[in-house]
Amino acid sequence: MKSAPLFAPSRRASVGALGEVALIASLRRWLGSAAPRPPAGIGDDCAVLRSPRGRLLVTVDPLVHGVHFDHRTPARAAGAKLLKRNLSDIAAMGGIPKAAVVALALDDRVSAAWLAGFYRGLAAESRRHGVPIVGGDVTRLPGAFVATLTLLGEAGPRVVTRTGSRIGDWIYVTGSLGRSLPTGHHHSFQPRLTEGAWLARRPEVRAMMDVSDGLAKDLPALTPRGAAPAIYAALLPRRARASVAEALGDGEDYELVLTVAAGKRRPALEAAWRRAFPRTRLTCIGRLVRAGAVPPDAVPLGEFHGYEHLR
Amino acid sequence: MKSAPLFAPSRRASVGALGEVALIASLRRWLGSAAPRPPAGIGDDCAVLRSPRGRLLVTVDPLVHGVHFDHRTPARAAGAKLLKRNLSDIAAMGGIPKAAVVALALDDRVSAAWLAGFYRGLAAESRRHGVPIVGGDVTRLPGAFVATLTLLGEAGPRVVTRTGSRIGDWIYVTGSLGRSLPTGHHHSFQPRLTEGAWLARRPEVRAMMDVSDGLAKDLPALTPRGAAPAIYAALLPRRARASVAEALGDGEDYELVLTVAAGKRRPALEAAWRRAFPRTRLTCIGRLVRAGAVPPDAVPLGEFHGYEHLR
Repeated sequence: MKSAPLFAPSRRASVGALGEVALIASLRRWLGSAAPRPPAGIGDDCAVLRSPRGRLLVTVDPLVHGVHFDHRTPARAAGAKLLKRNLSDIAAMGGIPKAAVVALALDDRVSAAWLAGFYRGLAAESRRHGVPIVGGDVTRLPGAFVATLTLLGEAGPRVVTRTGSRIGDWIYVTGSLGRSLPTGHHHSFQPRLTEGAWLARRPEVRAMMDVSDGLAKDLPALTPRGAAPAIYAALLPRRARASVAEALGDGEDYELVLTVAAGKRRPALEAAWRRAFPRTRLTCIGRLVRAGAVPPDAVPLGEFHGYEHLR
Repeated sequence: MKSAPLFAPSRRASVGALGEVALIASLRRWLGSAAPRPPAGIGDDCAVLRSPRGRLLVTVDPLVHGVHFDHRTPARAAGAKLLKRNLSDIAAMGGIPKAAVVALALDDRVSAAWLAGFYRGLAAESRRHGVPIVGGDVTRLPGAFVATLTLLGEAGPRVVTRTGSRIGDWIYVTGSLGRSLPTGHHHSFQPRLTEGAWLARRPEVRAMMDVSDGLAKDLPALTPRGAAPAIYAALLPRRARASVAEALGDGEDYELVLTVAAGKRRPALEAAWRRAFPRTRLTCIGRLVRAGAVPPDAVPLGEFHGYEHLR
């Protein structure tokens, strides 16, 4: 059995040429019937596994040196971030995190003192959320440091997926957006677990996801066929000194974006939110409109590019 | 907050100097109360999560280019191996595999054709065992290819852990050992799922694990305090042309090693095995004896070193 070489002979034949979106579509095609549709499979913040005994949430996210942290990130903060990235996915479905496993692939020259800081930071975050680290693996990987955490969670009474939005729904976002890297928000953020569980209990919340690759890139996943998001620059809650472009394009906000049914319940939702979370903003940033009917004063989202994982 | 650098200033301060066993012990110490004891936590083939709704098994194993496969491994075989490595861990606890997530960290020069083969091989294996790939992640990692699969399983009626052996128990191994790399067994093997589930239903089977780092390295995990394994070279089932050293030291056998209570049930177990699995060997290779009482004709296990993950 002759096999193609791991590295492509030309750029054209590489996964980089495919780009992230086409690559993920290809992975699903190659998996075929081995890849169920979301929310049971690839395509939402977590996979929702139904068993006779209840619903389980599963999500996996790695932390790669040089991509998700660098020498400016304290080791403890990097360790905490590994868990928090995944907690944010559980939050986006209104779930409760339960247990995690961590696979470590690392160069044998990695400093034991640095790794101690990393694991202590992970452990502190793990205790804060009651999520034990129940298993793992260690493998040698020359020149690199990759920690991959898989997080298991329990579904709340209602699982909010990315689908279910309708034309006319209002679009909301928690907290503020942009400049996550320069402000250190990318590692100091608190995953929106309480907020996500609270929002999932409100029936007027139609769909939800976390903003991790930049709002402009993430929003299409919440937008049903035949619809388009009309977002207004003036409404965007921006992090200190963030431009509109940064609020739309920067990655790693780890906020929640959600759609809310139009109607009488919307003001009640806003009022209840203010009572429940007086120090956290929940901002209406626009509305889902018919595709082709985006008002001229709305943000031309297609011009903003989020974080591209394969470049 | 000042942080230690990721790479150690000297070999002495690196994880490589710690070595694998000390590193894993350190990880557990750094995690502290965030790391429960096995089987609820790190230290067995899978973690066993108890919930009011049943018992869940979780295991994670990566596949790294240059470590677990290379240019001689067909892409499809590499993809299948990623799942099979993890299936072997579920087999070792007598469980039933249910669903998997895959995190991919790869160089953007990886060939799309190669990756298609890898995923098709993964998908074929996934369908064979009814284990859908329900989620994943893709991240850029210059110069490398790391696929990390987390496998969830259901516990069978009885979960067989690594603990529970007693002095006087007989030691058995399935299949044959050694020369897994040169023979291609490391990717062509069939995980012992049916065998593991069958063995877990036999009460005379006391403890079980899979042999993945070499028998000599793995056996101590089955050996209780105060005991030592007395293994006889002549009894070792060896793969074609494997020496005793290779049968004891080579990694990636993916066979099951188990302890069986001494007594009348042992011949019945062997006879029942032959009826259930006429084409697969189950070989008694020795016995657990009192530490310090290893007979002189037994193999001096301390002289054989298994696969070291951090070198």
